[in-house]
Amino acid sequence: MDIFIYININEFEKVLLQKELQGEHLLFAYDIPKKDHLSIFLKSEVVFGNLSAEWLPKSQKLKWLQLESVGFEPYRNLNWDILGKQIKVTNLKGMFGVPVGETAIAGILALYRGIEKLVSLKSESKWIGASLRPVLKTLNGAKVLILGDGSIGQTLRNQLQGFGCNVKIFGKFSKKANFYTLEELDKILPDTDIAISCLPETEETVGLFNTGRLGLLPNTAVFVNVGRGSVVIEEALVEALQNQKLSGCVLDVSNKEPIPETHPLWQCPNTILTQHTGGGSGHEIIKKIEFFLANVKRYRNNENLNNLVDFKRGY
Amino acid sequence: MDIFIYININEFEKVLLQKELQGEHLLFAYDIPKKDHLSIFLKSEVVFGNLSAEWLPKSQKLKWLQLESVGFEPYRNLNWDILGKQIKVTNLKGMFGVPVGETAIAGILALYRGIEKLVSLKSESKWIGASLRPVLKTLNGAKVLILGDGSIGQTLRNQLQGFGCNVKIFGKFSKKANFYTLEELDKILPDTDIAISCLPETEETVGLFNTGRLGLLPNTAVFVNVGRGSVVIEEALVEALQNQKLSGCVLDVSNKEPIPETHPLWQCPNTILTQHTGGGSGHEIIKKIEFFLANVKRYRNNENLNNLVDFKRGY
Repeated sequence: MDIFIYININEFEKVLLQKELQGEHLLFAYDIPKKDHLSIFLKSEVVFGNLSAEWLPKSQKLKWLQLESVGFEPYRNLNWDILGKQIKVTNLKGMFGVPVGETAIAGILALYRGIEKLVSLKSESKWIGASLRPVLKTLNGAKVLILGDGSIGQTLRNQLQGFGCNVKIFGKFSKKANFYTLEELDKILPDTDIAISCLPETEETVGLFNTGRLGLLPNTAVFVNVGRGSVVIEEALVEALQNQKLSGCVLDVSNKEPIPETHPLWQCPNTILTQHTGGGSGHEIIKKIEFFLANVKRYRNNENLNNLVDFKRGY
Repeated sequence: MDIFIYININEFEKVLLQKELQGEHLLFAYDIPKKDHLSIFLKSEVVFGNLSAEWLPKSQKLKWLQLESVGFEPYRNLNWDILGKQIKVTNLKGMFGVPVGETAIAGILALYRGIEKLVSLKSESKWIGASLRPVLKTLNGAKVLILGDGSIGQTLRNQLQGFGCNVKIFGKFSKKANFYTLEELDKILPDTDIAISCLPETEETVGLFNTGRLGLLPNTAVFVNVGRGSVVIEEALVEALQNQKLSGCVLDVSNKEPIPETHPLWQCPNTILTQHTGGGSGHEIIKKIEFFLANVKRYRNNENLNNLVDFKRGY
């Protein structure tokens, strides 16, 4: 079968794929001029990588698209009632829990333990030492609300277990959640030190953190978003940060990525922008390839694919 | 009795001490001109705070010195065979485990998850995003060696438990240690991703991390010091960082504090300098006062004081 390898890989990873997929007809995007990508795609039965959403309805051949992300947003608005009969889509849900969770905690601790300020002070060779101590905070004793109990939320819960925080979960479909409804959410937000959104993008989550809901958090709170950028109304967040209605913020995701150079987020105080690197690590590509290869095996054997996207839920 | 309150407190904390120590004769350093501090000291039976080491042998009255630190270094070289018959010294061992441990992890994650670079990028409104992902690392799977199994080392062990690291302990007096001797230490260093020193200053630990021992760490390793600055030969550390013999470093303590403006550490790459703020938090002073008050009660009742310094061990 024709497999179009659309993700960005290096020579070593190419050889690995060729070795593991002997007998298949592999086409590597990075070997082929961009102008020919669409015609290659139209001949492919399987695609590995996040290609343009508007191409999907054009293909008569495509049977399976393995995304290289968890997010399905660019494809959400296609007509899946029809397309879904021809194409299966799988994502990488579960692959990013560990690194994303670590990035969330790295960002929170950078604010709580002053690392954000200390990095700037180092660039000026400037010692302020003792005067910083009284403004530092500890995760120990902090009331942490994790929104979303998928792979990232669950991993975060584990990662935080040794810090002595008071962790609560908001998750519509989770058995371990403490809160399920928006009414319950709005009741707990005023008693939250750190709110971490790991929510997917769905009709219900888009714009969830608007002015009103951000305003429910105490002005000492830190807001963290490692889920989807669309969960937050960014103007409201910027306003809250600029006017000390929040004490800080860690964003791995944003409405637009890259964040435009003139966007006010760049200037917001006590804000850590991790530039959608949360899922990154030295082993990232190899892990993606391993996941794809396992799914190819299932595909060949007509078994159910891992991580099938539910087109109705959108993840 | 005359109690000299030498630590830096605010009006609220002063009132708290006055209320709790009614009947005692309290003298607050911050009420008194500096030139009179020595004469006040010479009349005091109890001192709370880290005053000049050279004053101690001058006093005929001092019976108990409650330090506001764990460290005893400035007093180590006094003649305790004689002084120790008159004066008891207590420190704040155990009080800083939580915040110092969090600062250590904050620093490590700042390097592993790119926060150090992302903070600088934010100040330039510069997005590099995806290109950072392959150089990021995870605590998950990392081989962590904690040197010293006192309060900080033990707390760190707990704090790290949810990250899926492989944690080993080097500690001469610990039942939970994996390694006890320098021979064992030198054997494990080449197989270490993150070495965290929480060692006290003693004759055996001074200069422990010299060129040779730092050289045993792989060049991908991160070295962390949240114990005592004297454990490291700083010239050797600077050389290792400048020449990529170490991939990074987190220092809460250093040979000289403040670090002199012209010191090469300020310019070392992948280096987080936390300026001895590790023990800091919003509740720090109140916690110190609470500890002191509990010890005053024991002192009045002729009970054993908590956290007596062992003059032979030096901590």
